[in-house]
Amino acid sequence: MVATSSNMQKLEEEIIHYISGQFPSSEEVFGIGDDCAVIPGASEEDWVVTTDAFVEGIHFLKSQMPPKEVGYKAMAVNISDVAAMGGEPKYAFLTLALPNDFEPAWFKEVIAGMKYWDVEILGGDTVRSLRDIYFSITLIGSAPRKHIKYRHGAQVGDRICVTSFLGDSKGGLMALQESLDLQKLIHSHFHPTPSPQEGMWLAAQKEVHAMMDISDGLNCDLTRLLKASGCGATIDLEDIPISKALANASSEHSWNPLEIALTGGEEYCLLLTISDEEFKPLQKAFEKQFHHPLYCIGQIENEKGIRYKKNGKLTKLALKDFEHFSQKQ
Amino acid sequence: MVATSSNMQKLEEEIIHYISGQFPSSEEVFGIGDDCAVIPGASEEDWVVTTDAFVEGIHFLKSQMPPKEVGYKAMAVNISDVAAMGGEPKYAFLTLALPNDFEPAWFKEVIAGMKYWDVEILGGDTVRSLRDIYFSITLIGSAPRKHIKYRHGAQVGDRICVTSFLGDSKGGLMALQESLDLQKLIHSHFHPTPSPQEGMWLAAQKEVHAMMDISDGLNCDLTRLLKASGCGATIDLEDIPISKALANASSEHSWNPLEIALTGGEEYCLLLTISDEEFKPLQKAFEKQFHHPLYCIGQIENEKGIRYKKNGKLTKLALKDFEHFSQKQ
Repeated sequence: MVATSSNMQKLEEEIIHYISGQFPSSEEVFGIGDDCAVIPGASEEDWVVTTDAFVEGIHFLKSQMPPKEVGYKAMAVNISDVAAMGGEPKYAFLTLALPNDFEPAWFKEVIAGMKYWDVEILGGDTVRSLRDIYFSITLIGSAPRKHIKYRHGAQVGDRICVTSFLGDSKGGLMALQESLDLQKLIHSHFHPTPSPQEGMWLAAQKEVHAMMDISDGLNCDLTRLLKASGCGATIDLEDIPISKALANASSEHSWNPLEIALTGGEEYCLLLTISDEEFKPLQKAFEKQFHHPLYCIGQIENEKGIRYKKNGKLTKLALKDFEHFSQKQ
Repeated sequence: MVATSSNMQKLEEEIIHYISGQFPSSEEVFGIGDDCAVIPGASEEDWVVTTDAFVEGIHFLKSQMPPKEVGYKAMAVNISDVAAMGGEPKYAFLTLALPNDFEPAWFKEVIAGMKYWDVEILGGDTVRSLRDIYFSITLIGSAPRKHIKYRHGAQVGDRICVTSFLGDSKGGLMALQESLDLQKLIHSHFHPTPSPQEGMWLAAQKEVHAMMDISDGLNCDLTRLLKASGCGATIDLEDIPISKALANASSEHSWNPLEIALTGGEEYCLLLTISDEEFKPLQKAFEKQFHHPLYCIGQIENEKGIRYKKNGKLTKLALKDFEHFSQKQ
């Protein structure tokens, strides 16, 4: 049976639920349920910790993705989780499972791609695999304890914001799957640009109430944030930021850019909520600091669930959650 | 080409060397080169961090190893690394790559096996794999900063000690490979018993100068300790502790028990060096505390390399490094 997106996500949720039920966290730490776990560090700092796995044929095809991009992206996915908590990425631990026919030159390019990110690899394990290449990264970042942001902090009335265009990565994946020469979108898929600088800056603002990264699509990840915070949201579809590259590709290839933007995963930008009163000055300050907009796309409400509005009117959307490359196999 | 033990170990060493060259550690941490990396924790405590990967068909066969033992042993391997630094195991991060036909009941037994160890699983990642089951564990332990023991602390004159019989795990692996019904040895292979209590107790003794765990065999791991400490050793072969189970199986099946004990990996007991003057009282106190002997097997010397002695006379041994199950594939 080929896994569909929904049964893979259901499976993952069941496994997480099972494990967290078997291993309850102690009071001194924050465990399963956010982008990172939080464990106490020295003085006023905490450590934020995340881990991700990458499998050949699932997360990358050697024939399709340059090895440097494999290493870059594998680390980027973890960097994004640390950034989402407001942390500074520091130390990585790497496991590698390599088949007999693995090529050292390919591997060195993977490591070169990881090196783009300013982290130290402090340990690891190299083992043999029967067939596919498998690797995992555990990344530890540091964050001032009082700055760390969680998914559960959203408050009714908060503005909902994202830090970049949405849908470019999914557009790139579609281009790869349909063999279209859309280099800009493909680059967005191979080369996401999570920004710990933006994460740390936003985490330092007390008006930012909740934060996470978008890895499974806005619709899916916002649902998680709302569930953690016990509230709902209205999203204004005309405010969803869509790049020219995605808009152009969409009109050329009859894609629905809005649907792509709402469900496109592997964005690795930030999704956050900001106090309504303080939103405007904070938006201005962000743009001044980072030279690109902070996009407001909606507002937190008391009523559970997500309501999509078009020109002020509620509209029904039939959204299918993002399918990572993996679930196409 | 099927990898041999020596080319797998050479490959692993090359990869570690390459990565540590690409990612030098900063001063505040201790990186690649010991059982764990060390990063600063709160107050007088440090965090010790290790990671290991496990691949179906390489580290375990589903048909041969009960899932509870797979989970138990996967965690034990990491527990042993934390124990070797003198740390208390605390938090684990788990990645899982599961093929479409994976069985939830099998997985639940794996988790049940991990639960034996008193650690909290604080995070993880569940992904799909094309064929085999892969998983990785990153384990974080805590240790009083001034107690942490490294491989590089051995001093000329130190007694060299181990905390258990040697060779039982390899005997069990041989029994599995030769389809022999040697349940006691097979149990030792499936169910190693690293002891963080012993590690923490030994780490608290200032007379203990260097410590590590035995995962690739005494000959191989002692070589690493000596290299890190810049010295050599003499080992007294008549002092190598060999269990009755291994001795009996050896006479029955014409095995060489001494060779098995010197090269048997996956022991997950401790190898340590103790100041000569303080050795006797410390050995007594250890035995009183843990109700089994601390075995002295030799002495640290200035001259590099390992010299094996039998009844006081130097003897030449042709030792072949331990082949993990993986390298038999």
